[in-house]
Amino acid sequence: MTLDIGVVGTGMMGQDHVQRLATSVPHARVVAVSDVNLEQAKRVGEGVGARVYSDGRDLIGDDQVRAVLIASPGFTHEEFTLACIAAGKPVLCEKPLAPTTDACLRVLEAEAALPRRLVQVGFMRRYDDGFRAMKERLDGGEVGRALLLHCRHRNAATAPGFTSDMMITDSVVHDIDVTRWLLGQEVVAATVFKPRPSSKAPEGLQDPQLVLLETSEGVLVDVESFVNCQFGYDIRYELVAETGTVSLGEVAAVQLRQQGRYQGRIPADWRERFGAAYRRELQEWVTGALQGRTTGPSAWDGYATTAVAEAAVASLGDGGRTTVELVDRPALYA
Amino acid sequence: MTLDIGVVGTGMMGQDHVQRLATSVPHARVVAVSDVNLEQAKRVGEGVGARVYSDGRDLIGDDQVRAVLIASPGFTHEEFTLACIAAGKPVLCEKPLAPTTDACLRVLEAEAALPRRLVQVGFMRRYDDGFRAMKERLDGGEVGRALLLHCRHRNAATAPGFTSDMMITDSVVHDIDVTRWLLGQEVVAATVFKPRPSSKAPEGLQDPQLVLLETSEGVLVDVESFVNCQFGYDIRYELVAETGTVSLGEVAAVQLRQQGRYQGRIPADWRERFGAAYRRELQEWVTGALQGRTTGPSAWDGYATTAVAEAAVASLGDGGRTTVELVDRPALYA
Amino acid sequence: MTLDIGVVGTGMMGQDHVQRLATSVPHARVVAVSDVNLEQAKRVGEGVGARVYSDGRDLIGDDQVRAVLIASPGFTHEEFTLACIAAGKPVLCEKPLAPTTDACLRVLEAEAALPRRLVQVGFMRRYDDGFRAMKERLDGGEVGRALLLHCRHRNAATAPGFTSDMMITDSVVHDIDVTRWLLGQEVVAATVFKPRPSSKAPEGLQDPQLVLLETSEGVLVDVESFVNCQFGYDIRYELVAETGTVSLGEVAAVQLRQQGRYQGRIPADWRERFGAAYRRELQEWVTGALQGRTTGPSAWDGYATTAVAEAAVASLGDGGRTTVELVDRPALYA
Amino acid sequence: MTLDIGVVGTGMMGQDHVQRLATSVPHARVVAVSDVNLEQAKRVGEGVGARVYSDGRDLIGDDQVRAVLIASPGFTHEEFTLACIAAGKPVLCEKPLAPTTDACLRVLEAEAALPRRLVQVGFMRRYDDGFRAMKERLDGGEVGRALLLHCRHRNAATAPGFTSDMMITDSVVHDIDVTRWLLGQEVVAATVFKPRPSSKAPEGLQDPQLVLLETSEGVLVDVESFVNCQFGYDIRYELVAETGTVSLGEVAAVQLRQQGRYQGRIPADWRERFGAAYRRELQEWVTGALQGRTTGPSAWDGYATTAVAEAAVASLGDGGRTTVELVDRPALYA
Repeated sequence: MTLDIGVVGTGMMGQDHVQRLATSVPHARVVAVSDVNLEQAKRVGEGVGARVYSDGRDLIGDDQVRAVLIASPGFTHEEFTLACIAAGKPVLCEKPLAPTTDACLRVLEAEAALPRRLVQVGFMRRYDDGFRAMKERLDGGEVGRALLLHCRHRNAATAPGFTSDMMITDSVVHDIDVTRWLLGQEVVAATVFKPRPSSKAPEGLQDPQLVLLETSEGVLVDVESFVNCQFGYDIRYELVAETGTVSLGEVAAVQLRQQGRYQGRIPADWRERFGAAYRRELQEWVTGALQGRTTGPSAWDGYATTAVAEAAVASLGDGGRTTVELVDRPALYA
Repeated sequence: MTLDIGVVGTGMMGQDHVQRLATSVPHARVVAVSDVNLEQAKRVGEGVGARVYSDGRDLIGDDQVRAVLIASPGFTHEEFTLACIAAGKPVLCEKPLAPTTDACLRVLEAEAALPRRLVQVGFMRRYDDGFRAMKERLDGGEVGRALLLHCRHRNAATAPGFTSDMMITDSVVHDIDVTRWLLGQEVVAATVFKPRPSSKAPEGLQDPQLVLLETSEGVLVDVESFVNCQFGYDIRYELVAETGTVSLGEVAAVQLRQQGRYQGRIPADWRERFGAAYRRELQEWVTGALQGRTTGPSAWDGYATTAVAEAAVASLGDGGRTTVELVDRPALYA
Repeated sequence: MTLDIGVVGTGMMGQDHVQRLATSVPHARVVAVSDVNLEQAKRVGEGVGARVYSDGRDLIGDDQVRAVLIASPGFTHEEFTLACIAAGKPVLCEKPLAPTTDACLRVLEAEAALPRRLVQVGFMRRYDDGFRAMKERLDGGEVGRALLLHCRHRNAATAPGFTSDMMITDSVVHDIDVTRWLLGQEVVAATVFKPRPSSKAPEGLQDPQLVLLETSEGVLVDVESFVNCQFGYDIRYELVAETGTVSLGEVAAVQLRQQGRYQGRIPADWRERFGAAYRRELQEWVTGALQGRTTGPSAWDGYATTAVAEAAVASLGDGGRTTVELVDRPALYA
Repeated sequence: MTLDIGVVGTGMMGQDHVQRLATSVPHARVVAVSDVNLEQAKRVGEGVGARVYSDGRDLIGDDQVRAVLIASPGFTHEEFTLACIAAGKPVLCEKPLAPTTDACLRVLEAEAALPRRLVQVGFMRRYDDGFRAMKERLDGGEVGRALLLHCRHRNAATAPGFTSDMMITDSVVHDIDVTRWLLGQEVVAATVFKPRPSSKAPEGLQDPQLVLLETSEGVLVDVESFVNCQFGYDIRYELVAETGTVSLGEVAAVQLRQQGRYQGRIPADWRERFGAAYRRELQEWVTGALQGRTTGPSAWDGYATTAVAEAAVASLGDGGRTTVELVDRPALYA
């Protein structure tokens, strides 16, 4: 049994997914791709023998397409996800579900009317060995209840045009999702603190930021977001609980002793760091879709995460603590 | 394009491979399984909708089977591998290629008469991130020429019936293969040293052993083989080269701070430690087979490894240094 | 040349210092001890052949005493330190210099009138190998300017009577001093955040706390103060700078592989963790005193640290951000 | 109470000890120094106000000298140590006790006739936190009986004139002493294996070497001696016992994350690595001497270590396994 998949968006992220589906994920076949950049879509589609569309809505309407992966820019996610829901097709939408809570809510309402979920949001960290082991330790009761969570989200350098807001909506959004998933609690407030910016960051960028999240049960989460740290893509976590702490391990495959130092590699970027997690995310999504199930991060997760990110962006603007108000959780996401 | 595979042997190793091919390896399909234990073969075959045979030769002769994975006991490998060669089918044979050099040579001669390789031997460590990174560092010239290699091969406990010889033929055989592959050199002599045995090992088992290998270019390799170490499955390597050393990193996904200690998990067994390597081994084998190529560890590697293991077993018997004499390497393996 | 020292206070800390001076510090001799608990003072004094006083002022007035170490309770520090200044004797005063900024200011003013310093405050972390190496890396310019500092201050369990305020005045005070010394900047504001308390902490204790400090040049410092963490005395730091980070290393002397884990010891308490730092603190203080110099943490450091701690305690009370106002720095401390 | 010490030999090692005694060791005073290089002795002596001799025997005869530290070249150790024994003065003799077993035996016999020990040999590793913790774990029974010991003894580069024999007599001699002390067993045989030499080592030097030691109770010890490893002074140990292993920890005080790597310092040389151990060695020696006790590594340890080194040098010459024959242990060393 093979899942025939259409991929909307053939930029870097879309290309990565097409390649992964073609070579590393069993029971998956990319049968269609789409992009407003039709030339690019053609190049990508040819590589795997897929039909090519310039409009994602046409791809979603293609009868052979049984499931959709959305990797187009964030502002298009609402429209495409709604189209998938209307078509009754399972959809894996890259984060964010949508850039605003209002847009997220429209998706949520559309899906909540269905008898079962169709939408999964692409928070791939939930599929990483380290994050999974951290959650297992916490859920297993080995360290008691969670009290604090320290998060480091570092990136070597940003592309031109990257803004201070995007440090939250593009980067910290992952830490928000991990917080909610790991702790099983909603985030109820966010405050952003601004240290002096690094002189290595582009002029005007508030980099780094220190984001403080508060959960519904009183866990405090501090997130260092530092996207021009120069030295690599460095994701570090320490969960502090009542009788112990759990940290992500170093990920270097080998350690060298050389030139007066022991040393190990820090990943260059998120593709190196989370390659295995992306593969597993797709594999579990495909397996679920073939069985008529959707189990990963839900539209509710996408909505709640965007709501917290919005609060953090507001706090970044005015410096104050911003509370997060969520709608009632629809029964579908109980 | 999908590779239709027959799996010979449905014991623990065979079952693992069948499961892996069915759920984690793209473009692979298990269409037949065989085992002298026909009931077991039926149970395994039913799970994936495969035909069932009691005799591996019948499976190899099945026209629908396009490639064969051999996971039956070592003494059967020669016959089944020769049958695959005769049938012109690519075959992935679990180690050892065969238990004796004479048997290995018969396989070698049969394959060497072909225009291209069909046989791959299941040395999965070559597909592990750590071992690959170690080889990349050495081949990249970062640390100069290799001089010494320190290997630790530890297992928590042995099953009943495990003998001192098997510590070499079942365990150290992996270190012999890594030595040859990592250094690109043949092993020319082996000596086994015997410390006092652990009181935790079964009566009569010489556990641990210290095996000293010498390569054609004068690299010394010491292998600690300790199969009742009690504490876990612990594979550790340090390559010592002219300007630095390269070690395998710790593999724990998370680190805990608890009860007065920082601590991280050591794998329980080889399935946990090398699960990802097995998956990649199969994936690359399937991809190659579909393209008419065989690129992994060759029959020559299987032969040379068995020859070194034989020398080590001889040394274990009489305590002396035993040299390894290899036949000329057939052109196919140049 | 030997420094004749009087030790005021023979509780646990005083006894440790007496023992250290007698056995591990060259050119030092304890010639007098004092304590309101005269019996205790006698026992301690006998061990090293020192005269015994019940009143610290008498000890300070003893002509044979050339330098004074104050290890009595914090509320007595002001009086004894002022007496030492009046007597013109070098004094090493355990932290705090005094419990309130007003008291600190009286000491400051008394000393500031002298031509040279006499007072050193016992912030021993400045003498620890790890903290020194961290400062060397920063001062050496290897990682650029500091931006953030993450501090973890964990203690296994508290004694009866330990209060939420004391988590700042007894524990975080060390992190405040490190911040000022490491960065070479004053702290200008403090905010205390309160996660849900650990159920392992005594009823009513706000444990853990997350203290956010802001420095004069915009560095943000977050301090986790967790004094009933159960698992050990765990001091961890990561300095985040423009091109890299510097963390304190693990301090375990050996690592074990045992029972399915690699593991290393976390110190049981501050005596184990900072024993070597205390020894070096005393050694450098004695060497300086013999040469007529006082170079360690100054009365100004003691004052500024208490001022920040006071602000943090105020924030703990009302939850708000509290700014720190310092008097002008007297020329003596330029 | 202060110990008046004479130091024989004012080369680098002697100067280090003089400095250490003067500044870091309580209750010690250097009252005399000697060296055949009288100018050097004068410079060193002036620094600490010590009398100066050109002949060590005159220093030993100086009535004010109550204890002697010998840091002159190895070939002089026998004569000076015998003179100390004759004078009834405690002596700390740098390793080796003497370069040959015959010379060692003469010292042994002279001391064995005394009612109590006077001679200590300078094996400073026994005073290192890491080695001590390793022994505590073993002696505490936490990991069962010792079976194997893996030792790495690496030095960045050698001075001109350093020979292959000296890799054993100067370097491995420390590992021999650690083996005997840690395990509480004598070494009964030594075999030296020769990998291809590093091209970074001086022409003709057999560097690295792999030395295999066998103890009286069947523990196997492999020592990598690599004295032109280029990258630092790197001492690593792993003790393998029946239920676990114990390794020396990393000694870096801080860890950096920078330029794509996490990294920590490896010491540059033995002074950096063992500075604290040397200090403690001297401190315990001084304390003992003042109390009329000698407790550190004995003349027997010096003799046995030299005997094993001699066997290893013989093996280096002829490639064979060489057994070690010791005389009966005199009652003084029971």
